[in-house]
Amino acid sequence: MKAVVFTKDNELKLVDNYEKPVLQKGEALVKVTLAGICNTDYEITKGYMGYVGVLGHEAVGVVVDVNSEDKSLIGKRVVPEISYGCKEPSCPWCAEKLYRHCPNRHTLGIFHKDGVFAEYFTMPTEVLFEVPDNVSDEQAVFVEPLAAALEITEQHHIKPFEKVIVLGDGKLGLITALALNAQNIDVTLVGKHKNKLDIASAQGVQTALLNEFKIEKIYDVVVEATGSISGFETALALTKPRGTLVLKSTVAASKEFNLAPIVIDEITVLGSRCGQFPAALRLLKSGKIDFSPLISAVYSVDDAIEGFEKNKEKETLKVLLKF
Amino acid sequence: MKAVVFTKDNELKLVDNYEKPVLQKGEALVKVTLAGICNTDYEITKGYMGYVGVLGHEAVGVVVDVNSEDKSLIGKRVVPEISYGCKEPSCPWCAEKLYRHCPNRHTLGIFHKDGVFAEYFTMPTEVLFEVPDNVSDEQAVFVEPLAAALEITEQHHIKPFEKVIVLGDGKLGLITALALNAQNIDVTLVGKHKNKLDIASAQGVQTALLNEFKIEKIYDVVVEATGSISGFETALALTKPRGTLVLKSTVAASKEFNLAPIVIDEITVLGSRCGQFPAALRLLKSGKIDFSPLISAVYSVDDAIEGFEKNKEKETLKVLLKF
Repeated sequence: MKAVVFTKDNELKLVDNYEKPVLQKGEALVKVTLAGICNTDYEITKGYMGYVGVLGHEAVGVVVDVNSEDKSLIGKRVVPEISYGCKEPSCPWCAEKLYRHCPNRHTLGIFHKDGVFAEYFTMPTEVLFEVPDNVSDEQAVFVEPLAAALEITEQHHIKPFEKVIVLGDGKLGLITALALNAQNIDVTLVGKHKNKLDIASAQGVQTALLNEFKIEKIYDVVVEATGSISGFETALALTKPRGTLVLKSTVAASKEFNLAPIVIDEITVLGSRCGQFPAALRLLKSGKIDFSPLISAVYSVDDAIEGFEKNKEKETLKVLLKF
Repeated sequence: MKAVVFTKDNELKLVDNYEKPVLQKGEALVKVTLAGICNTDYEITKGYMGYVGVLGHEAVGVVVDVNSEDKSLIGKRVVPEISYGCKEPSCPWCAEKLYRHCPNRHTLGIFHKDGVFAEYFTMPTEVLFEVPDNVSDEQAVFVEPLAAALEITEQHHIKPFEKVIVLGDGKLGLITALALNAQNIDVTLVGKHKNKLDIASAQGVQTALLNEFKIEKIYDVVVEATGSISGFETALALTKPRGTLVLKSTVAASKEFNLAPIVIDEITVLGSRCGQFPAALRLLKSGKIDFSPLISAVYSVDDAIEGFEKNKEKETLKVLLKF
């Protein structure tokens, strides 16, 4: 089958004859319809996680086979959660469905599991979620980053009177701002690109250009979603004493920091990664957010490498791969 | 009056004729009995906060005058909280007695307020706390760092089944481990010095030498109290996914960090500084902790500079100044 692979020689390639995955017990075989390139995929091609294999963890597809007695998923349109755990009864992470923290987890296209940039992938049935009929493939393919945005509200209680800043108007920042706004949270998206901010403001999000925005330590919650290592210091300069700075960007680079301001202002820095899917699917079904304006380009899998190049361009938001 | 001053020329000196503070409305004049040198004092002499004036914020003394109608504090043995706020009715920090976060605060020996390393200091009466009769001056002078240790339990709910590590066996680490242990929390103090760890274990705290301790990401709460910038990475290597790393050291230095592990493991980094005094005084009164073994030396104020030199020595724990 066709697959987009990151090789041992640190090369990104489209392979025509990658071996089709063998269905393990409890797994479903999914034929990919549409997949999304995430910045994490790009970070992996720079060495993040030391991963080698089929890339990709954002996809929508159709179940074509199931290796279990219950065949009810066959023919269903599904989205895969990013990780599955060891399922040992003694694992506290798996018990809470926090598979992404299970020490023996497998993560699509990131850790010990081939990803979704291929004609087929396999995942255990319990981490596949049926897509509601009224949600198109183009919307459904955003479920994973949307779940990651909603993870903030799983980890931290944002109170109705609190003021939230999302810093960064790339796709991570836009999706986060749209998701928080759809939950009636007082959120302002701050970024450097008017055209990107306009996507959020067209859907009712308050926005501001960074160079016109007053940097004051007055915000209860500041979400760092710039994808750049320097965003942390700006986020810290916006977080009020005893406030919460949510760290969303996973950047492989290091930078010199002085941690004293975190102590002096008693800031909570909250690392936040992926989220569970049910709340994201509920929000997609509600139709409160339209992700179409975030789609910069759709490439056939045959042009996947070109899609990766497009993804690197500054102006690009989401690049999709069609199978 | 005699005072230990950090000057504009970055010089630490004992001044014989420093002007006695003028009592403002609502303030009490306190004659200092005993004061403690804190590492923050030492950080200030290296440029932290850009402070100039009388140093010191840990003291016990006797009220000799009060500028208000209520004179009941006169003659009482008291300890001062470290900061006082603007007291404006509109200030949310002052309303919650979180004076240390009031944007217009004054902080003893650190920010816009002469400190306690002098024969006299003044503070508003509402931030002076009477010392219980059964608590000696030598124990009472530890109330400020003890309150700072208890601040952790104000900010974060440590559940009875959770495992806590305090990293660093300097005075900050020792006081924190003793304070948490006195609250029946499952705490282990990890440090490099057997003689210092022994002080804690003699009072029932579990201890371990760092080089014999297995570094695993399995602890619910890890308190970074090494006073060294490199402690952060060790603390991170001990904090379990979704666990809490409490940052206690205020270090003026910067270091290169990679923030990605915070995101990947969804760690909460909690900056924690000073605390309120009532809980600390209650714990002192209970007699559950004995701070005497932490006193390395007591100097007369006339030998204060020598006391600062002693404080720099690696083996030194708390140095007190007697007035």
